[in-house]
Amino acid sequence: MIGIFDSGLGGLSAYKELRALRPEEDYLYFGDTGRVPYGTRSKATLEKYTRQDIAFLRARGVDAILAACGTVSSVVLDDVKDEYDLPIFGVVDAAADAAVAATKNEKIGVLGTGATISSRAFERKIRAKDPDALVVARACPLFVPLVENGYVARDCEVTRLVARDYLADVKAAGVDTLILGCTHFPLIADIIADLLPKVTLINAGAAAAHAVARALPRRADTGGSAAFFVSDDPANFDEVARIFLGGDTISAEKVDIDTFAAEI
Amino acid sequence: MIGIFDSGLGGLSAYKELRALRPEEDYLYFGDTGRVPYGTRSKATLEKYTRQDIAFLRARGVDAILAACGTVSSVVLDDVKDEYDLPIFGVVDAAADAAVAATKNEKIGVLGTGATISSRAFERKIRAKDPDALVVARACPLFVPLVENGYVARDCEVTRLVARDYLADVKAAGVDTLILGCTHFPLIADIIADLLPKVTLINAGAAAAHAVARALPRRADTGGSAAFFVSDDPANFDEVARIFLGGDTISAEKVDIDTFAAEI
Repeated sequence: MIGIFDSGLGGLSAYKELRALRPEEDYLYFGDTGRVPYGTRSKATLEKYTRQDIAFLRARGVDAILAACGTVSSVVLDDVKDEYDLPIFGVVDAAADAAVAATKNEKIGVLGTGATISSRAFERKIRAKDPDALVVARACPLFVPLVENGYVARDCEVTRLVARDYLADVKAAGVDTLILGCTHFPLIADIIADLLPKVTLINAGAAAAHAVARALPRRADTGGSAAFFVSDDPANFDEVARIFLGGDTISAEKVDIDTFAAEI
Repeated sequence: MIGIFDSGLGGLSAYKELRALRPEEDYLYFGDTGRVPYGTRSKATLEKYTRQDIAFLRARGVDAILAACGTVSSVVLDDVKDEYDLPIFGVVDAAADAAVAATKNEKIGVLGTGATISSRAFERKIRAKDPDALVVARACPLFVPLVENGYVARDCEVTRLVARDYLADVKAAGVDTLILGCTHFPLIADIIADLLPKVTLINAGAAAAHAVARALPRRADTGGSAAFFVSDDPANFDEVARIFLGGDTISAEKVDIDTFAAEI
């Protein structure tokens, strides 16, 4: 069984991608809706939340984990994943690989939360693969609240104005490839693409789903079940999850996440 | 010693007001920056967080508490405050009193977080005082992220556009008085006032500070100390707190809030 977690809803797009690639697997999704957003938290707090999220998934018996959250993947994962006795994937490596493969002019942009961009994790991974690459990174702290409040229509003036600010440096640098380094951002990919025509957008969650599918051995079909858990009232999650899943209805269950240990 | 708490920074404006009225008191402020925002959480989660916040303040020896958070005051406080052995004030009663006193046409608007507006707490309190009042309430879920990201300048196009949407119903109804029912909102009072000239704005945190000052007996001057605590890294809090406090520098200390009991 594959465990997937995120601060909230964003990781559902990675789940959807992975399930399409590996429909025979069982899935367990956790969204930390009682403590979302992650992108504004400190490293110490993010490490604690990540360890509790992993503890919950392990207690439920998963044997591989995808941290489908750009912030966790950037700030915490490299420091903690080797301490666990199961494979834990993030979204940074896969997205950096995809961007280096896609770029022609070696100018790559990165959008993420404040914590993600401060960590410089995408930049480090890209340069490890291509030391000559120019990386232009930009924190986009309002994108998550805008997406969560439904400001996602292609012609939404508010989101377009905010995006125009955030994309100015990336545009001026002439990047030909742009990593959407937060799993919420693909929901406003239209708006970003309109402001940056001819730029290849890399969906970090989707890239990670492909990496997980390649890395894990194919197993016997166990039915392809999926269960969803959240740390706040599931009603709102179920409703907004339909947008992420393209209309599929789910029924999440609440879990008391801070009762799980922040130690291994 | 008076304890004041909020989901984060917003309550500092109420603290500033109260300290000006009662400079001889000692203050202890807690901002739950590791779990902010509160305005999108469910009632069960808000009750748990509120009880933990109160437990922390009591453990530090405060003898009166101001919940300087519109969401906590609206959703949780009436259900829990009588269980405690010290006075606990919220912002709803004081703001409702001030609005009923201010209105000439008995049409009152209320702005708040999603949880605040869903609770209908302001509406109930206003109608209890003036059964004939027309109350027009509107959830403004993007105002807190906009304020926390510094989109507060009077000519900020993004915040003006969002505010224009949020204020449409209130404007159409012809209210002459508008409650800013979240302690973050006074930071964009200029933008709101420009869109609603001639409307009296009621600052719920300031109204509550005046109510607390009236209700508590004057005590001997104990030095007028102030201590600040947060549940995430204090560095960012200290920086943004200066905006709320008009330039005063503070130095907050981190506390592990989820180790405090959610029971009395």
